[in-house]
Order: sequence, then structure tokens, then C-alpha cells
Amino acid sequence: MSKYLLHSMSYREAEKYFSEKDIVLLPIGSTEQHGPQNPLGTDLLIAGSLANEASKITGVVSLPVIPYGVSFHHMHFPGTITIDETVFANYVLEVLKSLKKWGVEKVLIINGHGGNLMSLMIVSRRAREELGILVAIYQWWIASKEKLSRKFSEEELSHAGAAETSLIMFLYPQWVNTNNFVDENIRRRDLDTRISRFKYTREMSNSGVYGVSSTSSNR
Amino acid sequence: MSKYLLHSMSYREAEKYFSEKDIVLLPIGSTEQHGPQNPLGTDLLIAGSLANEASKITGVVSLPVIPYGVSFHHMHFPGTITIDETVFANYVLEVLKSLKKWGVEKVLIINGHGGNLMSLMIVSRRAREELGILVAIYQWWIASKEKLSRKFSEEELSHAGAAETSLIMFLYPQWVNTNNFVDENIRRRDLDTRISRFKYTREMSNSGVYGVSSTSSNR
Amino acid sequence: MSKYLLHSMSYREAEKYFSEKDIVLLPIGSTEQHGPQNPLGTDLLIAGSLANEASKITGVVSLPVIPYGVSFHHMHFPGTITIDETVFANYVLEVLKSLKKWGVEKVLIINGHGGNLMSLMIVSRRAREELGILVAIYQWWIASKEKLSRKFSEEELSHAGAAETSLIMFLYPQWVNTNNFVDENIRRRDLDTRISRFKYTREMSNSGVYGVSSTSSNR
Amino acid sequence: MSKYLLHSMSYREAEKYFSEKDIVLLPIGSTEQHGPQNPLGTDLLIAGSLANEASKITGVVSLPVIPYGVSFHHMHFPGTITIDETVFANYVLEVLKSLKKWGVEKVLIINGHGGNLMSLMIVSRRAREELGILVAIYQWWIASKEKLSRKFSEEELSHAGAAETSLIMFLYPQWVNTNNFVDENIRRRDLDTRISRFKYTREMSNSGVYGVSSTSSNR
Amino acid sequence: MSKYLLHSMSYREAEKYFSEKDIVLLPIGSTEQHGPQNPLGTDLLIAGSLANEASKITGVVSLPVIPYGVSFHHMHFPGTITIDETVFANYVLEVLKSLKKWGVEKVLIINGHGGNLMSLMIVSRRAREELGILVAIYQWWIASKEKLSRKFSEEELSHAGAAETSLIMFLYPQWVNTNNFVDENIRRRDLDTRISRFKYTREMSNSGVYGVSSTSSNR
Amino acid sequence: MSKYLLHSMSYREAEKYFSEKDIVLLPIGSTEQHGPQNPLGTDLLIAGSLANEASKITGVVSLPVIPYGVSFHHMHFPGTITIDETVFANYVLEVLKSLKKWGVEKVLIINGHGGNLMSLMIVSRRAREELGILVAIYQWWIASKEKLSRKFSEEELSHAGAAETSLIMFLYPQWVNTNNFVDENIRRRDLDTRISRFKYTREMSNSGVYGVSSTSSNR
Repeated sequence: MSKYLLHSMSYREAEKYFSEKDIVLLPIGSTEQHGPQNPLGTDLLIAGSLANEASKITGVVSLPVIPYGVSFHHMHFPGTITIDETVFANYVLEVLKSLKKWGVEKVLIINGHGGNLMSLMIVSRRAREELGILVAIYQWWIASKEKLSRKFSEEELSHAGAAETSLIMFLYPQWVNTNNFVDENIRRRDLDTRISRFKYTREMSNSGVYGVSSTSSNR
Repeated sequence: MSKYLLHSMSYREAEKYFSEKDIVLLPIGSTEQHGPQNPLGTDLLIAGSLANEASKITGVVSLPVIPYGVSFHHMHFPGTITIDETVFANYVLEVLKSLKKWGVEKVLIINGHGGNLMSLMIVSRRAREELGILVAIYQWWIASKEKLSRKFSEEELSHAGAAETSLIMFLYPQWVNTNNFVDENIRRRDLDTRISRFKYTREMSNSGVYGVSSTSSNR
Repeated sequence: MSKYLLHSMSYREAEKYFSEKDIVLLPIGSTEQHGPQNPLGTDLLIAGSLANEASKITGVVSLPVIPYGVSFHHMHFPGTITIDETVFANYVLEVLKSLKKWGVEKVLIINGHGGNLMSLMIVSRRAREELGILVAIYQWWIASKEKLSRKFSEEELSHAGAAETSLIMFLYPQWVNTNNFVDENIRRRDLDTRISRFKYTREMSNSGVYGVSSTSSNR
Repeated sequence: MSKYLLHSMSYREAEKYFSEKDIVLLPIGSTEQHGPQNPLGTDLLIAGSLANEASKITGVVSLPVIPYGVSFHHMHFPGTITIDETVFANYVLEVLKSLKKWGVEKVLIINGHGGNLMSLMIVSRRAREELGILVAIYQWWIASKEKLSRKFSEEELSHAGAAETSLIMFLYPQWVNTNNFVDENIRRRDLDTRISRFKYTREMSNSGVYGVSSTSSNR
Repeated sequence: MSKYLLHSMSYREAEKYFSEKDIVLLPIGSTEQHGPQNPLGTDLLIAGSLANEASKITGVVSLPVIPYGVSFHHMHFPGTITIDETVFANYVLEVLKSLKKWGVEKVLIINGHGGNLMSLMIVSRRAREELGILVAIYQWWIASKEKLSRKFSEEELSHAGAAETSLIMFLYPQWVNTNNFVDENIRRRDLDTRISRFKYTREMSNSGVYGVSSTSSNR
Repeated sequence: MSKYLLHSMSYREAEKYFSEKDIVLLPIGSTEQHGPQNPLGTDLLIAGSLANEASKITGVVSLPVIPYGVSFHHMHFPGTITIDETVFANYVLEVLKSLKKWGVEKVLIINGHGGNLMSLMIVSRRAREELGILVAIYQWWIASKEKLSRKFSEEELSHAGAAETSLIMFLYPQWVNTNNFVDENIRRRDLDTRISRFKYTREMSNSGVYGVSSTSSNR
């Protein structure tokens, strides 16, 4: 039997792994609204599944998923959980400090939620300078942008749109309410492409869906 | 379909739940050595499973498990991850702050790891005073002490002993190395029943098992 | 002349002591209610007296007592002072950092107040890992449990009960209001032996006495 | 019997006091070198004694003395204990927060150590703005400057000089080594009256005495 | 006389302004390398100048420029100053807290340095939730992207490239070393468009210039 | 051309400077009321100008001015900006940490605002102990006390009095409202020379001027 999840391994198995490899995958998600159709755990479930698959293929061990991230913008939608940016970064850094002890020098964070990125970039800086660990952050909607663009239109690629909905439908079909698909144009003032600011989701979308989700499919 | 895991629910389902109930279960574990036979995720897996079962029975919603806790004492055993006590408490408090927004007034923490207790007691104090949320902490080895004592001897009830090993064998048999069961007497100076101090696991046990695990069984 | 209190010694006397010994006693108390009969300083006075006596007998130097600790649970009783858990731990750690400079490697904390224990255990962990100092925590009601049980019943051994009241009567008779002895059964729901949670004193006792104090005596 | 020390009072006595008065005295000292003749506790002992006397005369209650302050400049003299400025300020603020709860609106800090002043001024600002408590800081060498100047020369008025030494001799004669009186001119470059900077004591004095202590007397 | 810089106004002039308007401009820069040709203050000088001009035109008051930002990636180039992300965010937040007191509800940050953006987005979130102030962040290279693209090629638009160099030449010609213009292709592995990670400038450029600066001109 | 402002130099010029010298000037001011006649930026403008002049004369490089300091006492006068003492100290320390990297061992802070002094003294202590950098703090009204006393009376030497007003008139005549000169006796209870406490400016002065400013002149 070959284990690829850290939490499935005994410390002896972990010892063997760390004597051979200096890299791990760390999935990080969020618990936040993803439209009326998708589960609140969409980001943590996708991050965990992607890490899991990547581990199977590459033999690089995957760690347990951190399930709560930075989701203040969604806090008008019930069930959303958010963590202060600094508290979140500190929690992730503590995990990296422990990994340092086991000889890890490279961590690929599988980040399921864009809202975590600012804090994770700070983590990436501090991990390199304070721990000597290289932290890179993988986000499926960025890394696969080209491939996704061949299958989905611009309107289907945003938060809780058809691309994300299809992905979670593929992984956890029993948790998607296919009767609740919503299409909603994002309200976005022109200004917003020229300046940056913190925005609440509901300023842009009543349903929590940004764009088109009705075309989702788990095939 | 009746959902009982928060991360499986849409925000509309969550909204309905929180309009009816003001209580949730929050499982918290750790990623740390549990002897040569058990997976590093023993505590997070047990906490998650117990919360899951309790949710099914009671209809009280369960949240995603927090997988990393306070495990400094095990940091000589590879693969263990530990979080600074204050960082850990702050992370948990952020989750509670969000729950406050959804009307939650009572949180039962299903704690899979005794080493988290000091920080969680501080969380319980701060949640009550700062958020007005009652936080109680359930630990299976304490709550079921009497029942467990009928099936297991004193030597079988400690960290990675037969009770805990049997529990994880029942839940995740594929991840237990039954060839690696260890029995090891705890080295504990008499003094230690009279004074309190931080101790490393390896001061008390070479194998990471405290007592007897060879009698474990998943029946 | 042989001095045994650090604050009575000149720096030259301290220099001599630290060239010979690497251990000190650090008494820590609290300023909090101890029933209508006892002084608010009960814990700090007992901690100081015990340290003083131990120093006289052993020649191990005793430091000035830290008089304010973690007493949130008593904050419905006037005059109680409480310190945030993290602020308290940081203050104690600063004292240890200075001691490190003088060559101290072992510190026995004489803790007069159980409510300080969680923070002091965190101090014990951090002192060992960050400073290389072994910190052990002595609590008279734990260390002398067996002896005390021979003289006092279970009901007399709790907060402000006959054991503690007798001790402070022995040390500071002029500050005990012997007319105000109270006996009060602790209100404790059965649940509380199975789960842990932050509780206010007044949930368990109107008077602030847990059990029996009327049998106190300074002999 | 009329009690004037908070730690000697029961919570009922405290309740009565706080129903009548909204002011307390809070003595704060340090544990630091005071020349080869004086005890390390000079500042905490003087602060405590002054508060004690003031309480007796005025009926304003005095709190237990905070024994460790900001003494980094003395850290080349064994036995000195120092607290980080921010940790120290936070500890004092916690005491004030509790006092707020008991209706206190005015706190006179009896500060035995000048090195604490910067942090205490920050405390005074924060207490006023965050708690609505007026905090004033009394320092005997400032408040009695005029009177002291009539009895002591400039050279006798500094740290561990004849004024301070005489005071501690009066209070704790058994702890002063009268054979060790030292007179030492302070090395102070002219620049220092024009710029401010952190200086170590040993840059100015080998003995830890600033000026003349040989003329000390406990009369 | 009509003043448009806050630091040029008396408190009475400020009072008048704040009685009429609830918006200000806050320029924020950095002190960091901008190639061998440009001054270390390029970002703070541009931010200050832009705010100044915008104030003149709109009558919206401009505040003094914050001159040090988040520049860890440039710390291999002498003279660069960097501020920890959290310390930087806290400093900016304090300015906003004071503005709140004067009735300000909208702040346009004129950010001269892209490396500050992550921290400023956290500031924008916290300002909205904790202070009720809307903070938007203007960056000239983003806001004027379209216009700039008509005058400059892709290679001229990066850090210390021809666009930025021309701008600082226009504003502070005496501080630009026109003999030191550099053209250097950015070393950027393809991976970097798909994952995010903290990178040092020198991993991408030896000179500190990203792309082409030789075509700079102050006309 | 010889540059003496760090922000006017390229990194190559900075490299050359730091290879020759290990000292810099760091001007720090505040944005706060200076009476009805003077600009809010009085302290930052004076600090910047003094540093500038000192650099020209000595060849010691001057850094960009930190424009916001600790000004809580002036917060009843519109336009004043204040920074929490600890946040302010941390920001200054970050600048010093970067300077450490460039070989700086001595920093002369040109402090334009007395209210910053407490925090800067803490900075001076921490810089020496944590960074090995000597930080001295120059304040013009202290350093030139003797000279100033020959030209100005006691009443003209305080906050926004004739000395300070004349200085800012000399530097920025266009920003001084010479019609608004105020003379106001400071309300100061006798007590205040004997105890220390945080005071608001308006407790002592209605106009924000302490003493006499009507005799100001820019000659």
C-alpha cells in the first residue's frame, strides 16, 4: 500500500517520506457562499480533491485541508465563515514552521479560494525570509485559464459560475441543488477596473453567483 | 434530503437552519504521532467522525474539522504539525465570531486532542465574555470514561493505547498498521503527579505509545 | 547574614548566588474573592509565604510575588483583579528571560491560584523551547493532596473552603473575618464532569465559597 | 478594624469601599540593581511603603505592588529583572480594566522607578481614552524635589545616591550593606544634555551608584 | 489663498474643510530601487505629485505622503527600505482612524508602489468594517493603462521602465541619471503566469529594471 | 552633483554612500495643530528642513520624513492625525531594520514633535538591543535651549509659541496666518509639576497656543 495523504501515514511512514522528499502539497479552502446551488464547502472540497489527485499522480504527499479562509466579502450570506487576514496568515505559517522541522523546503499551496491570495502572498514572503521555505500558490482557475476558456465563456468563469459549479458537481453531485442554478449579471461600475477597493459580494450580485451558472454540467 | 454538515449546505439551507437553531458542533483535531501503528490524523479523523455521527442523530449541524492543533510535545516524531497556543486560539475565535453573526449562541467543540484543551478553555472564556457564546468542550476519553473503563484497563486508555487505536481501527482500518502494535510502560517520575510541567512525549515513551496497544481490535 | 529573598539582596549578593546555583522560586498569586471571610490577597499571600519558607529551608532564592493573575471567573465579586491570559503569560515570560541572563536553568513556580495554570503551562512550554529553561509549577492543594485528605473532607478542600481558610488564618489571622464563615453546596450539573467549559463562580456559589469553611481553624 | 490594603480586604469590604470611593493607589516598582549597598527590591519596597503610608493617612485603598518593571539599562548587574515596555504597559492596563468594573475613576500610581515612566505615560493616555480612568503618576524624587534639595546635594539625589539609600535604610535597615557605600562620579558626555538616547548604566557608572551614597543615614 | 495640502492648513482651515467635505487623498509611496537611473524615492515622489495635482484640480485635500512601504523583494539593492506588511497596514489604519474623527467617509489612496497593494486591500477591508470609511486605491499604471499603452510598449511599462522613468524625469529631472538607462529582459519562467509566489527582483533582473528604460524622455 | 537626500539617490549612489558611512539622519514629525496661525505640518516641515540643512553641511545622508506621530493630546483640534504609540514605534523600527542591512550603525533622529519622544526612547532601546544600532534623538528646542533663551522668553518657547512660529515662518512664510497670532496663558495646576499624567491640550489652552506667539517674526 502506498499512502499519499499525510494524515493517513504513521510517523514512521512520514519519516521515510521526509528522508526522500522535501516537498508537500497544502490544500487551503474556505467555507463561504457559492450561490444558492453549491455547498458552502465548495472551495475546501475542490482544494482537497485537487491535492488528493495531484498526490496520487506525483507521489508528493498532501496535507489535511485548512477549511476556513478570508471571506469577509461574503458575510451577508448565511453560513459563511471568515478569518481575519493576519490570524489566517499566522495559522498557515505555523504549519510551515513545523514542516521546516521535517526538512520540507518547498510547499505548493493548492488554494481553492481567491480571497485567501493576499494573505498567502504575505505567507509566501515570510516563509522564504523567515523559514527558508519556497511557497508557491496554485489556483485552478488561473493555472488552467487557457483550457477553461476553451470550454467556458467569460461569464461562466467567475465565482459560482458554470466552471466552478461543474467542478463541484463532478466531485460532490449529491451536494449541488441543480434546481437552483442562477444567471445574474455582475453589477460592476467601470471605475472598478481602474481602482482597487474592498467590495461586498452583494454590491455586485444578489444571488451570490457572478455571471452564468445555468449551463453547469458534471460531465 | 436532510443535510447535517455545514459545508454540504448552500447558504439558503444554512439560512433555514440558523433561523431554527442556535447551536452547532465544531470538531477540532490535530496532526500528530499516534504510535507506529496509527495515522498522524487519528485525532482529526476521530473528531470529524464523532461530530458527523452526533449530527446525524441530533440534527445539530457540524462544521468542517480544524485539522492542526497544539502538539509541541510530539515534535520529535516526524510528520507532527503544531500550532502556537495563541495563534490556535485566535483561529478558533475567528470561526466563533462568524458564527455569532448567524445567531449561534452555543458551540459544542468536539476536541479530538487533549493538548488543545488549555487553548480551548481560553477560547471558551473569551467567547463567553467577548461574543456572548457558550462554548463547551467535549472529549470522548473524558465523557465516556466510565464506559471505556469497563472495556479497557488503565494501561489501555492513554495516548495511542488500545482504546484509541481500536477507535481509529473501527473508523479507518485501512490506515492502521496492525503489525506495529507496541506496548510500552510510561516513564513517569513520581514527582509528576505533584507538580505540573511541559514534558516531551519522548521523555515518557520511545515509541509514542503510552501503555498497551497490542490488545486493540476493531470490533 | 544569609539572604534568601532576591529583592533583599544587592547585585553583588545576587552575583554570588547565581555563580553557585541555577534555580529559583517564583511565587505567583492572584487578587480575587475568597469568600466573605478571607482577604482578596489570599492566593498571593499563601504563594509568597510558601516560597519564603521553602527558601529558608533549601537556600534556593525566592523572587518577589506576581500579585495579579487570571481570575475572570470571579469578576462578579468586588475587588477581584484579572489579567488577560496572554498578557499574563507574556509578563511571566519576561521575568524568565531576565533570569536566563543570570544563568538560571530551572524555575519552580509556586502558584497560589489554580486559574493561572493554563497560562503557566503555556509559559512552561515556551520557556523550555524558547529559553531552554525548565519551568515546573507547584500548587499546594495538588502537591499535598494526600496529606490534606487526612485532615480535611472533600467539601473542605475547594476554593475558600476550610483547608485554604485555615492556611490563610495561620499566616494572616488579622485579615480573616471569622464571623463570616460560610458553608455552601456547589451547584454543579452532572454534565460538568463530562465536558469542560468556562464557568463563572456565581453559577456555582452565591457566597464565593465552594463547600465548607465553617470548620476552619488556624491550628 | 479599618483596612487600607485591598489584598487584606474581603470582597464585602471591597464592595463597601467601592460604593464610597472611586480612587485607589497602585504602587509599581522594579527589581534592579541599586548599587552594592542596596537591595534589588529598593524600588518596589519604597513604592509599597509609600502607598501603605498614604493609605493609612488618607483612607484611600492601596493595591498590591507590581514588582517588575522596565530595567533594561541595568541588565549588566546580576539579579536585575526587566520587562518589555509593551508587555509591562499591557499588564498594568489589565489591572486598570478590572478596577473600571468596580467603579474606579482615578488611579494614583506610586511609581518607585523612573525607568517605568515612559510606559506608564502611555498607560495614562490609554486608560483615559479607552477606559475613562484618570491615571496620575507620583514619583517621590520629583514630587519632593524641593524638600529633598534642602537636605541633599545634587550628587546625592540620583539613582542609589544618599537620598534613595537613606530612604531604604529607614524602611529596611537589615537589607542595606552599610559597608558597601560608594561614591562615583557619573560619566556623562556633554552631548547628553542635548540629545536623548538609550544608555546602559555601566556607560555612566561602574558601581551602579550615580554620585554620592556614603553620606546616607537612616535618620 | 486656497490651500489644498492638509499640512499647509491651520486647524481652523482644516475645520472649515471638514465641515464641507468628507473626502481626502492619501498618497503612499516607497523608498526602493528603481534601476540605476532613478531615485530611490521615485514612488513616493510620484504619489505625492499626483496627489498634489489632483488636489489643485478638484479641491479635495491631500495629506502628507507616507514614504516607506512594503519592498522586501528589492532588498538586495542598497538604500531600499521595507516595512513588514502588518506593521505597514496598522500605520495606515491609524491615519484613517484619526480622519474618522474629522468626519471623513471616503479616502482615495494614491498608491505609488504596487508592492503595497496587498496590505492596502486589507486596510480597505478593515477601514470599511471597523471604521465605516470607504477606501479606494488608485494606481497610475493601472488607472491609465489604456492611455499609457498608446505611448509605450509592453516592455516599457514595467518597474523602472520607460513609462515610470519618463514620469519621474518630468517631475524631478535633476535626480535622474540619464547616462544609466538600462534595457534588460525580465527572466520569468513560464510557470510564473500560472502560480503565484514571492519573488526577489534579482531573480528577474540584474539591474533592477524590468524591460526597456532607454527610450525614456521627460517630454 | 552631490546628493544628500536618500530618496534622491539611485541604489548605486546609495551603495557608494553606505560603503563609506554608517550613519544617517531620520527626520520624524507629526501632523497636528499648532495654533490658529501655523500649519498642521509644522513639526514635519521643521524636522525635514533641519535634516536637510544638516545633510548639506555634514554630508550625512537624510531620509524621507515620517509625517505622522503620536498626537493624541491634540485630537480636539481638527486635522490632527495621531498614531498609537506601539504602532508608531514598530513603524520606525522597521525602517531601522532595513538600514541595518545597509550597514548603518548610527541613526540620528531629527524629532520635530515632543509627543513622539516616549515611543522613540523605546525605539532607541530596542534598536540597540535587537539591531545593534545606536539611535540618538535630537530635538531643536532642547538642543538649542541656551541659544533660544537668549532670544526668547520662557512664554515664547512652548508649543506654537513665538520661537516655533518664527521658525516655521522663516521656512514656510506662505503657510503662516500672521493675522491669527494668539497669546494665551497656559492653565496649569501646580500639581502638574509634581505628578505626571496624560493631559489634553485643551485642558491647558483654548487656542492651542501655549504662551505668547504674537512676537513671532521670520527674521
